[in-house]
Amino acid sequence: MKACVITTPGGPESLSLVDMPFSPTRPDDAVMRITASGVNRADILQREGRYPAPPGAPAWPGLEAAGTLLTAPASSPWSPGDRVCALLPGGGYAERVAVDASLLLPVPDGLTDVEAASLVEAACTVVSNLDEAGARPGETLLVHGGSGGVGTAAIQIAKARGMRVITTAGGPERTARCAELGADVALDHRADDWAQAVRDEGGADVILDVVGAAYLEANLRALRTGGRLVVIGMQKGARGELDLGTLLAKRARVIGTTLRARPLAERAAIVARVREEVWPLVPDRLRPIVHATLPLERAGDAHRLLESGEVFGKVVLTVA
Amino acid sequence: MKACVITTPGGPESLSLVDMPFSPTRPDDAVMRITASGVNRADILQREGRYPAPPGAPAWPGLEAAGTLLTAPASSPWSPGDRVCALLPGGGYAERVAVDASLLLPVPDGLTDVEAASLVEAACTVVSNLDEAGARPGETLLVHGGSGGVGTAAIQIAKARGMRVITTAGGPERTARCAELGADVALDHRADDWAQAVRDEGGADVILDVVGAAYLEANLRALRTGGRLVVIGMQKGARGELDLGTLLAKRARVIGTTLRARPLAERAAIVARVREEVWPLVPDRLRPIVHATLPLERAGDAHRLLESGEVFGKVVLTVA
Repeated sequence: MKACVITTPGGPESLSLVDMPFSPTRPDDAVMRITASGVNRADILQREGRYPAPPGAPAWPGLEAAGTLLTAPASSPWSPGDRVCALLPGGGYAERVAVDASLLLPVPDGLTDVEAASLVEAACTVVSNLDEAGARPGETLLVHGGSGGVGTAAIQIAKARGMRVITTAGGPERTARCAELGADVALDHRADDWAQAVRDEGGADVILDVVGAAYLEANLRALRTGGRLVVIGMQKGARGELDLGTLLAKRARVIGTTLRARPLAERAAIVARVREEVWPLVPDRLRPIVHATLPLERAGDAHRLLESGEVFGKVVLTVA
Repeated sequence: MKACVITTPGGPESLSLVDMPFSPTRPDDAVMRITASGVNRADILQREGRYPAPPGAPAWPGLEAAGTLLTAPASSPWSPGDRVCALLPGGGYAERVAVDASLLLPVPDGLTDVEAASLVEAACTVVSNLDEAGARPGETLLVHGGSGGVGTAAIQIAKARGMRVITTAGGPERTARCAELGADVALDHRADDWAQAVRDEGGADVILDVVGAAYLEANLRALRTGGRLVVIGMQKGARGELDLGTLLAKRARVIGTTLRARPLAERAAIVARVREEVWPLVPDRLRPIVHATLPLERAGDAHRLLESGEVFGKVVLTVA
């Protein structure tokens, strides 16, 4: 089969389409023929050598894919021919992938494979982190990077949960689009003192943050008493000063999470939560936002596009 | 009545016994005649002007007291003459205090008033923070300051909860006493690389920390995957560098809490939890550890003693 592998950790040029034997190692895995695979920022980190694939996972990137089942374990509710999408520990940048059946989801009615592939990782990230934070209806969620894949999903899922949503994005066009997706308040982080603006709005009960160190202090300022800051990315730095005085005074929490490194049972439980809570929202209340599709052999260009910061929503690779 | 007030924020000499009218502001409060009042590190911060009394609370220190009820609201299960102890928002350094009846506990059978007064704040701190952290039987708890008031209670309460307990204390005598209290592993923070020692023991699921910034990085290193660091004090600094990379990789949490500033209903719920979970352990499985008692008029000396670092357990003020 064809797979898009990392030849040497580095820039987008290090992604290279190669022919390789398809050799799944676990006989009980389902096997998918992939038609679409979402591109995530974690793929860029992996390409740069900063986010290695977990043991047992394919070495090439790709955390989500959609397509058709070629084989399914007899013990599973799935059958060959089923249209599915999957949360992958890696390996989505390829024609085929073997995956534990507990990580499969049906392609929601009315969605293309591209749209389904664009939603899996973001939906799992949002639901698992809102759960980690104990987010409740009526609470205020602050989503940084509202124009990203996770951000666009978070705005819509949190609104469907009955939360009030404040988001940040870069520039008036993006904030306008975030508002169209349902954000109650959309702040331009290039123009606004967003932390002060969030405080003026009464503060955030939960913050979903992909920025990391550069936002740590301002995030703490933006939290309400009892607030929870969930850090899921470190786009701007990994080490930041934490003001414990504020943390204690607000009785706040800083929570770090990742999805890929979790034990299979936890990932399967998250996929089940997505099927239960998020899939019924698709497509009326949760619209997949696909910015662009590129064929698998142009994965490097897909990374360049994501790195350009010009993407609203997701970039998806298509596999012929 | 006599009360030991802070004349000007500063050293122990700023505590001064004065006569003042007893004038409770809320007519539905119970009124206690105080016989004993525990001394806490927060009292020292308050004396220094760094931890002001919350609105509505007496301006003088004292977060816990024991004694006898002089009056009790008709709606409460308490009666005048009951031997009680109480979690106070302040005001324990006095002959009398008015307190919401939901913050009262009976003096446990077999305990003196001094012993009861020594336990209330520590028991509430330990139970509420183990709850905040979602501490489970079989998990490993790391308690810093195992020789302090909170530490000696935490070791015993966590053991009774079925946790494995690792603690740190200063010097071999103190670690030996912590082991006597039930700590499975007692580390001398003056001699040991405690973070490495905790890692060698498999890491901590929950850390109860009074040290703050100086331990932030080492605490993160000592945490297991999914671990929770609960910071309840800042004896060595309020601002420390947080390594978000480690936080995310371990899917860990940093939780800041305080007790005094919480809404009354939350404090009442904590007192109820203490009555349910902790009071049945007293005195067989939870021994009050009273290092010294001093009369109320020597509150300054009591603070000096606590500041000396030579205390094991609690210092309690007695009120004639």
